[in-house]
Amino acid sequence: MKSMKRSWRLALVSGAVLMAASAGWAAESLQDVMKRRGLSQQDLLAASKTYVPTGKRDEFIAFSSGGQSGQILVYGVPSMRILKYIGVFTPEPWQGYGYDEESKKVLAGGRIDGKDITWGDTHHPGFSETNGEADGQFLFINDKANPRIAVIDLRDFETKQIVVNPIMKSEHGGAFVTPNTDYIIEAVQYAAPLENKKFYPLEEFNEKYRGAVTYWKFDRKEGLIKPEESFSLELPPYSQDLSDAGKGPSDGWSFTNSFCSERYVGGIEKGRPPYEAGCSAKDTDYMHVINWKRAAELVKQGKAKKINGHNVLMMETSIKEGVLFLIPEPKSPHGVDVTPDGTKIVVAGKLDTHVSVYSFDKIMAAIKAGKFESKDPYGIPVISMKDTLHTQVALGLGPLHTQFDSKNCIAYTSLYVDSQVAKWDFCEGKVLDKLSIHYNIGHLMTMEGDTTKPKGKYLVALNKLSIDRFNPVGPLHPQNHQLIDISNDKMQLLYDMPVPLGEPHYVVAIAADKLKPAVRYKVGTNSRTDKPHPGMVRAGEEKIVKKGNKVEVFGTLIRSHITPETIEVEVGDEVTINMTNLERAQDETHGFTVSTYNVHASVEPGKTVSVKFKADKEGVYPYYCTEFCSALHLEMQGYLLVKPKGWKATKTTLAAGSYSEADYKKQVKKIADTQAVIDSVVGYITSVNYKDFPDVVNLVEDATDQLGKMKDAKAKHEAAAAKKDWEQANLWAEQVWQYQVKAADIGLRAKTFLEQSGAKKTK
Amino acid sequence: MKSMKRSWRLALVSGAVLMAASAGWAAESLQDVMKRRGLSQQDLLAASKTYVPTGKRDEFIAFSSGGQSGQILVYGVPSMRILKYIGVFTPEPWQGYGYDEESKKVLAGGRIDGKDITWGDTHHPGFSETNGEADGQFLFINDKANPRIAVIDLRDFETKQIVVNPIMKSEHGGAFVTPNTDYIIEAVQYAAPLENKKFYPLEEFNEKYRGAVTYWKFDRKEGLIKPEESFSLELPPYSQDLSDAGKGPSDGWSFTNSFCSERYVGGIEKGRPPYEAGCSAKDTDYMHVINWKRAAELVKQGKAKKINGHNVLMMETSIKEGVLFLIPEPKSPHGVDVTPDGTKIVVAGKLDTHVSVYSFDKIMAAIKAGKFESKDPYGIPVISMKDTLHTQVALGLGPLHTQFDSKNCIAYTSLYVDSQVAKWDFCEGKVLDKLSIHYNIGHLMTMEGDTTKPKGKYLVALNKLSIDRFNPVGPLHPQNHQLIDISNDKMQLLYDMPVPLGEPHYVVAIAADKLKPAVRYKVGTNSRTDKPHPGMVRAGEEKIVKKGNKVEVFGTLIRSHITPETIEVEVGDEVTINMTNLERAQDETHGFTVSTYNVHASVEPGKTVSVKFKADKEGVYPYYCTEFCSALHLEMQGYLLVKPKGWKATKTTLAAGSYSEADYKKQVKKIADTQAVIDSVVGYITSVNYKDFPDVVNLVEDATDQLGKMKDAKAKHEAAAAKKDWEQANLWAEQVWQYQVKAADIGLRAKTFLEQSGAKKTK
Repeated sequence: MKSMKRSWRLALVSGAVLMAASAGWAAESLQDVMKRRGLSQQDLLAASKTYVPTGKRDEFIAFSSGGQSGQILVYGVPSMRILKYIGVFTPEPWQGYGYDEESKKVLAGGRIDGKDITWGDTHHPGFSETNGEADGQFLFINDKANPRIAVIDLRDFETKQIVVNPIMKSEHGGAFVTPNTDYIIEAVQYAAPLENKKFYPLEEFNEKYRGAVTYWKFDRKEGLIKPEESFSLELPPYSQDLSDAGKGPSDGWSFTNSFCSERYVGGIEKGRPPYEAGCSAKDTDYMHVINWKRAAELVKQGKAKKINGHNVLMMETSIKEGVLFLIPEPKSPHGVDVTPDGTKIVVAGKLDTHVSVYSFDKIMAAIKAGKFESKDPYGIPVISMKDTLHTQVALGLGPLHTQFDSKNCIAYTSLYVDSQVAKWDFCEGKVLDKLSIHYNIGHLMTMEGDTTKPKGKYLVALNKLSIDRFNPVGPLHPQNHQLIDISNDKMQLLYDMPVPLGEPHYVVAIAADKLKPAVRYKVGTNSRTDKPHPGMVRAGEEKIVKKGNKVEVFGTLIRSHITPETIEVEVGDEVTINMTNLERAQDETHGFTVSTYNVHASVEPGKTVSVKFKADKEGVYPYYCTEFCSALHLEMQGYLLVKPKGWKATKTTLAAGSYSEADYKKQVKKIADTQAVIDSVVGYITSVNYKDFPDVVNLVEDATDQLGKMKDAKAKHEAAAAKKDWEQANLWAEQVWQYQVKAADIGLRAKTFLEQSGAKKTK
Repeated sequence: MKSMKRSWRLALVSGAVLMAASAGWAAESLQDVMKRRGLSQQDLLAASKTYVPTGKRDEFIAFSSGGQSGQILVYGVPSMRILKYIGVFTPEPWQGYGYDEESKKVLAGGRIDGKDITWGDTHHPGFSETNGEADGQFLFINDKANPRIAVIDLRDFETKQIVVNPIMKSEHGGAFVTPNTDYIIEAVQYAAPLENKKFYPLEEFNEKYRGAVTYWKFDRKEGLIKPEESFSLELPPYSQDLSDAGKGPSDGWSFTNSFCSERYVGGIEKGRPPYEAGCSAKDTDYMHVINWKRAAELVKQGKAKKINGHNVLMMETSIKEGVLFLIPEPKSPHGVDVTPDGTKIVVAGKLDTHVSVYSFDKIMAAIKAGKFESKDPYGIPVISMKDTLHTQVALGLGPLHTQFDSKNCIAYTSLYVDSQVAKWDFCEGKVLDKLSIHYNIGHLMTMEGDTTKPKGKYLVALNKLSIDRFNPVGPLHPQNHQLIDISNDKMQLLYDMPVPLGEPHYVVAIAADKLKPAVRYKVGTNSRTDKPHPGMVRAGEEKIVKKGNKVEVFGTLIRSHITPETIEVEVGDEVTINMTNLERAQDETHGFTVSTYNVHASVEPGKTVSVKFKADKEGVYPYYCTEFCSALHLEMQGYLLVKPKGWKATKTTLAAGSYSEADYKKQVKKIADTQAVIDSVVGYITSVNYKDFPDVVNLVEDATDQLGKMKDAKAKHEAAAAKKDWEQANLWAEQVWQYQVKAADIGLRAKTFLEQSGAKKTK
């Protein structure tokens, strides 16, 4: 083997030479590739519109519900690359979500009737808004199966809170926010008694089963929902569906769809027609029109009834106080979408071919004039459809959901049965374009397309079936999100994106530059509360504290060692291990687990996380860093020793390695050689305008950190050598070299970055 | 509102007109787009090499470990689109994995010391092989944190088995298969006592702590690992790492790396240098060379010792019988990779700059000649490095892992510290090309690149840090898998793929045409055992069986109703609900959940799944289909009624809807109008060569299924009308229309497909 010095130098030089030579790789021309891969000119144009080269960024960031996966997925537009799955209702070990103590507390907020719920059926994400515009601060999402709402903080893309709806047994129409995020709207799906754990037979459906809509109060400063300041409206047992909050002129009102206003109860096993027949027998259902600002005042005035400890405005009160109205809407509607200017409300009935555009002014005029066509069976005033319609447009089969363009009056509506997207004008009521998708579109989504300031450019079709679109992966297929260019008169299909996990129902997208997430935490942060973590220690302060049968470890993580490296406990002890990641470098995450004790933590720079378990089995259990964090990642290990009760050590010294003075001299020489390499890299970096590259400045800071750690190890190996303790001398010298390797790693990355970014010589 | 008839017809016609007109969408030229988006000619060439247009397929399918997510992710190459996450060690609700009874049994196989382990740290997936080639039948993956191996069946991409390693406390080097999948190899990572729950102090590390390698016997016919026919070799407490099985001339042997052969025990909290220093102090570690075929024979001869009930060949026996040897290898190696022809073994030492190429012939010659340079402290013969080396090549800093090209003698090695991929010639020992990646590559992967027949074309760099490559998503970054074109002399970087969930360690890829997964199950299949499910019923056989406090439901799912639609139980009953998906159509998955009872099932066509819970709270709990499966998906619902003990009904009739004869006549007319639309679609389909399109033939079959269901509902509405029962008449007529809507949906999809695929008129 060649000497370490020569080979390090050689590697550095040959790398540079080869890279310089590799500019002429283009062996195949564009035409060759198109011919070989069977691409048309249109395909190439589509590719050019979605491809994002290495190091470049996407224009928009989409947040998609994961459906039954219980998570949120985040993807870039137009590249359609999935950037992250965020654990929300379902434990997810990569993020440590549900496997560390801090996130377990968030999930515990979602317990129902005293039991853990370990999944969710997420449907509709919603951004926090300021003046009706997406502000990029928070994201909310609902759980249909187990009625809950979660709050995700977009500063770190972590779930911070889960609240359980106190009166519902299922919900679908959440989360929709009011224009300044005062409230988050959540509506029942399937009616049930509002009292918790209360049984009434289906024969009393009309009398005892109820719908509802909840207005959750959001405290933006704390980033938390305030359940005690939230309230609901009791509604008839029509299956409430999606909602939208008014904006601009309609601010203060909200609109909630329904289906099965027939109040049909199925029973196919008893010979009754199924729900699908009885729930779609009539030509219209009801849109609920609610004055939520006034309702909130009524609740403050004490006019709500407490049900399960929660404020509910009963129908009687809502009717009397004039905060609740109904308007017929076409059969089995799904989306109810307020136009960006807040003047119109667009409703599509799945079993009708029209979209119906309601005028908010006309609704207000009818209410003001007291002009109602009837009352529903619960006494709620019904405003007539014809008095409130602006226009109706025949779009096609199975219209579902509408989103808006940046261009005035332009909307897009999904057509489920036709498997098409329709582009149309909601002012003049005419169809402009149609595009086939693959297949059976549910929701669709334009950029900030449900806010007061849609951004246009792209549309995503959330198709429910992919069938033949992708390579087969077994009976369970991915969903297909198709990216469509809407910047021209005609829509153009650009890209098919498989969704590999979950069945998204709705997506919201925001201009990427509105998001400013952090890359690290203030050292010692509990990321789930954003407060200092009591388990935090700094380097050198690590300790193990025993009190009775409770053992608490205060440890740290840094490339590439865990402190402490041995944890000794007695069988039966309750063990809490706090770990603080001392790194400052971006993306230097460490993971932590203890073999077979079913705990895991993801510890990003600055974070403090704790894991807890009962050491209920004797033996030897390795712990280690689960993230490949440096070249010596595998050596970032330790042992949990679970000793029998009362065990006493008989042997107290570890076997010594065999190290000589010659070994030590070799180590010292290796350090000097490596330092020469580092010096040459540093020489290059400081010879160019590296300070003009903030990423490089960060790298240099990180490399300096690593080199700074050398001092202590150097003092130790020199002291040991002076005492002729060759094992200690060799090992601490080796540790110096480890710091050098890490510094060199970072330095080389900085050098490559500068070379590829066209850094200029300054000296 | 216009009449239903007119609007359905209108929609159909206007759609066709608009689609014909939409050919001229190309408002922006390719040059315009490149300028607007800042794309270079090289970017466009790269885009043309990765872009896969809608409906086209990928050439290769990659299966990636998910690291700490405990899952497998599946993606297409060259599009780098993630097609599926497969639940393996971690429960995943979208797939019902860990939320239905069948998959809970698979996960229960992975329980350790009597407790659930709800995650895994997956590292190295491996395909089943036939004659050393990937055969696309099975996939295996390991769990480092909780030593286990899982078996995934590639007929349905589902996990079928998890086995727990009986003697290890952590492992890293799995899963690697022998050339005909006789055995799956799994090696210890951190040494520990082999006896379960046995404590020895670290002071007895050299004497009592052990490494090991396990050979798991695989029964290909049953698709299951046979633990009782599996065995292990006891090894010294060197941290064993990756393995590879010999092939061709080296078949019957396997090779396992190690690091920390210093047997160093850290203790930074006590002032000892950390593991990273002590474990990398020496210039070499040991490659373990094992004659596994002979070892298997020895075990059959009864020469193994039972430890925790498992056959272990002790070192003494292995040495005596000549099945275990060591060869020094450069410092802290990671990959050990046998060349496609089986003649050489490539090892890269992370802290050395070389790859070392060992000659299998030379190893055999030394063993045959009994030429050993020494014995290790446990008496294992050590063959000298120089006697066995074919060549060594200086590649750069931090070489980790090697993969092979379809071209003879060409290999690719990842360089962690340099953040580069090196292309080199392992026959002649020279470097051919280098490419910078972003950043810090761990493993790399070529197409079938660790088999006897690598396919060349593409390489994927599994980079551990993405830092600035993607839009920021908080402190926890995605990994970056970079796609590289290796079909030319110079490597070309094509694409950056963020990994949104998990931290993959290794990936394997296979030619897409080798995979032939099913799209449906034989009706009534338990997919986890591939056997008939006792809970299966066919349409019309649904029932609810009560025995004491046990209630078992035998139900079915089909667009868009659940049978039964009401389940009545008493509080405290143990409820099992079996659901069979009666669909035959591809991608017609239904989901099933019961509100707040924390169960969920994904029920693909033909599958039978059961969920189980104790109905421990009174009340009304909706259940519903969680997959958006048709236009009437939201109406695919039912109610679980949990009644107080001894509750007696007082009211026994449901409220009747108000339906008139006029309503019924309207329904009948709607049916006739819709039938006219369907007839026109059928007319089109049968007028062209639709039988030449297998996908359309499937759709036609499915549409015919839906129309076939009409007969029964038609008889019912006519019978009810004859008795002037207008509610039943209306609702069953509506049900006829529901079947029509589903048939129309499918028919329209078929029509669009034919139009877009250039179907030809046949009459």
